[in-house]
Amino acid sequence: MPSYKLTYFDVRGLAEASRLLFHLAGVPFEDKRITFGDGSWEKLKDSTPFGQIPVLSVDGFEIPQSAAILRYLAKKFGFAGKTPEEQAWADAIVDQFKDFFGAFRQLIVAQRGGKSAEEIEKITSEVVKPAQESYFKILNGILEKNKSGFLVGNGITFADLVIAENIESLEKFGFFNASEQPKLSALREKVYTQPSLKSYLASRPDSQI
Amino acid sequence: MPSYKLTYFDVRGLAEASRLLFHLAGVPFEDKRITFGDGSWEKLKDSTPFGQIPVLSVDGFEIPQSAAILRYLAKKFGFAGKTPEEQAWADAIVDQFKDFFGAFRQLIVAQRGGKSAEEIEKITSEVVKPAQESYFKILNGILEKNKSGFLVGNGITFADLVIAENIESLEKFGFFNASEQPKLSALREKVYTQPSLKSYLASRPDSQI
Repeated sequence: MPSYKLTYFDVRGLAEASRLLFHLAGVPFEDKRITFGDGSWEKLKDSTPFGQIPVLSVDGFEIPQSAAILRYLAKKFGFAGKTPEEQAWADAIVDQFKDFFGAFRQLIVAQRGGKSAEEIEKITSEVVKPAQESYFKILNGILEKNKSGFLVGNGITFADLVIAENIESLEKFGFFNASEQPKLSALREKVYTQPSLKSYLASRPDSQI
Repeated sequence: MPSYKLTYFDVRGLAEASRLLFHLAGVPFEDKRITFGDGSWEKLKDSTPFGQIPVLSVDGFEIPQSAAILRYLAKKFGFAGKTPEEQAWADAIVDQFKDFFGAFRQLIVAQRGGKSAEEIEKITSEVVKPAQESYFKILNGILEKNKSGFLVGNGITFADLVIAENIESLEKFGFFNASEQPKLSALREKVYTQPSLKSYLASRPDSQI
């Protein structure tokens, strides 16, 4: 088996779905976590392929970009969808997440950049809320049609991991109310109750995102 | 061979890389183009999987999201990368484009939404320009290392199509100067001079994006 190392900040963020995937598949990996703000990242940045993390190293070969990493591992471990059509749908759902996250990221940037309460409220109402409404409508529509409770086919794929993690972050930011979203809550539950994830989920470092 | 239909607006936009891929592979498809503003889209919208286009229909089975469509076709037609590692890099480059496009889209939305010149200038200098600088640095770094002139391995992949098309749009918006970007210009040239694309490129409808 190759030697895998996944490097990211010490938060869930854009690496957590890949971390979950390693645990789901029972594949050992080095979960390399960089502390933000102590200069470690600045030292590492220029040596990464795109000047950003997460980066996956596979026997020293480096792959950047969270969704590319996740898709690569999902194909290796058998969680990418069972047919080309299932794979395309898992991809489409993750791309939809990325579109939504582009909107949500504007809020995070504004909050961390110390923008005024008024500007943050404007981004929330004009950008994040409309994007979230459309995103949740799409996800609920998929879960309505796909009777397995997972997003694609009849088993868990990397798309389920991405969406469950995103729901977790949205809840921590006050953008997700479990009682209003029974289907999405049930999806997160189905992911988080996978037996092979139990030990990691009970011990992982918590973070807002 | 399956019956393919690709539905999108009558612009290059998010469908053009897939259109190019069909022509590159010499695979027939229905290039269904919706006129914007005549009510056609409003009639179609609710019947699409995610309420958005492009949508690819494969013998009636529908796939949403531009990158998912493109990746599905690239795998079918042999333009997705020759190894899992090449595929991961093609994916990573397309994800990097999506990140950049998230920034660029803010400018398009502001322009079309009739925002003031001051607001457009603010988005350009604070959002688009920094995102573009980072994106071009990444692409140039890849082309520096990968001596084939393509972005991944020694042949054309769907990542080359996405980036060539994006360069075309950036040029039309005044964000790309060929003489300042010799490597990226050469990449576009390598894509646009593929013999199987010649006829389509000479006759396709032009659009700013």
